Amino acid sequence: MTGVPLSQSELFHLIARAQAAYTRCVDDERAQSWPDFFTESCLYVVTTADNYAAGFEAGLMYADSRGMLEDRISALNEANIYEQQSYRHLLGQPDIRNVSDDGIDVETSFMVVRIMRNGGTSVFASGRYIDRYVVEQGRALLAKRIVVCDSKTIDTLLALPL
Amino acid sequence: MTGVPLSQSELFHLIARAQAAYTRCVDDERAQSWPDFFTESCLYVVTTADNYAAGFEAGLMYADSRGMLEDRISALNEANIYEQQSYRHLLGQPDIRNVSDDGIDVETSFMVVRIMRNGGTSVFASGRYIDRYVVEQGRALLAKRIVVCDSKTIDTLLALPL
Amino acid sequence: MTGVPLSQSELFHLIARAQAAYTRCVDDERAQSWPDFFTESCLYVVTTADNYAAGFEAGLMYADSRGMLEDRISALNEANIYEQQSYRHLLGQPDIRNVSDDGIDVETSFMVVRIMRNGGTSVFASGRYIDRYVVEQGRALLAKRIVVCDSKTIDTLLALPL
Repeated sequence: MTGVPLSQSELFHLIARAQAAYTRCVDDERAQSWPDFFTESCLYVVTTADNYAAGFEAGLMYADSRGMLEDRISALNEANIYEQQSYRHLLGQPDIRNVSDDGIDVETSFMVVRIMRNGGTSVFASGRYIDRYVVEQGRALLAKRIVVCDSKTIDTLLALPL
Repeated sequence: MTGVPLSQSELFHLIARAQAAYTRCVDDERAQSWPDFFTESCLYVVTTADNYAAGFEAGLMYADSRGMLEDRISALNEANIYEQQSYRHLLGQPDIRNVSDDGIDVETSFMVVRIMRNGGTSVFASGRYIDRYVVEQGRALLAKRIVVCDSKTIDTLLALPL
Repeated sequence: MTGVPLSQSELFHLIARAQAAYTRCVDDERAQSWPDFFTESCLYVVTTADNYAAGFEAGLMYADSRGMLEDRISALNEANIYEQQSYRHLLGQPDIRNVSDDGIDVETSFMVVRIMRNGGTSVFASGRYIDRYVVEQGRALLAKRIVVCDSKTIDTLLALPL
């Protein structure tokens, strides 16, 4: 995966930096560059805990290339939903589960709050990321992100990248 | 405590990994193996900020051995409350306060949201863990966890391990 | 800034410790020593995402010295609002954006819940800290903290340091 093996601590900081940049992109920079956090050929799935436990692959959103993610984000921008609300992700510590030639398997809890521009803030979604990162030119990219949402009722989730 | 002293950074990652595994256990794997995160002789207390500040030891839940924790989790499983709701913990950075021969004293803020399976998500509890970890065979185990809840009204908290 | 340059990992832990101590102070120790986390000459601003994006400097709270922060916290203590409610901060990973002779630029997401002493807990505020830290005698102090709140409606925020 990389020429020089990284220490546990270096891996942790590489992943933590990648996750911080990802959430900053989605929360503060309006998501246009969101696909840049993935590898060209990638897997991005949003699903529920029940679906995931049952082994169903489909989920509520499915993309297997960076191009599909770009289409997705363009559609969101046209829908122009960002005026009325914004989101804030909070992530737990990235938990590195396995490191192999295929990549770095990481699991991370997340919580997202939704802020209505002229109103209150409430918990919008929670769950865990099941990620596989690969390191390209010193940067950790997502080869896979399965977003496993705790709640069954996440149709509105599709309004933003998770 | 350990034969070879660990650096500040190694300690941090050891604790962070232990906390990530603990919350994953409680949130995603239905808690049966929750007692495994404690030493055989241990202290686990759930209390309120007011009680803790006043020096009261009792609190809302008290266990001083892994066996008591196992009894507790069996009772919870029989009560079968997990069908209707689930929980998601989010922890702040573990803050290492002191390292001595007795163990590693760590304080960590937490927040727990409750997800109703067919409904909304809301903040269920918040507070701080006052922990003492010991390292056994390369793994950080809880010799003590005082769960200090911010709210006075936490009777329902007893439905899950915190 | 310091005689001996620190590694990326050492910087991360230094910042993480400073942030953990800051939130512990505000959440658990009643904030009197809150100004001690800043340099003598400092900048502390609370503003909204809209104001910040528009380049407005003023915001909802402005202080440019430790003395002003001390005045502020005295006023809060006299108002005696702490009896009825408490707060809990949860921070994301500190994201180190830049390191120079002027200091360490760090961005960090935050969420604050408010706990009514005899009632519920709800999300009170969310946003990001745009910080500049300087290291003095091995400790990271805030030379600048811009608190950028996601919501427009944060007048009540002024009840506590963020």
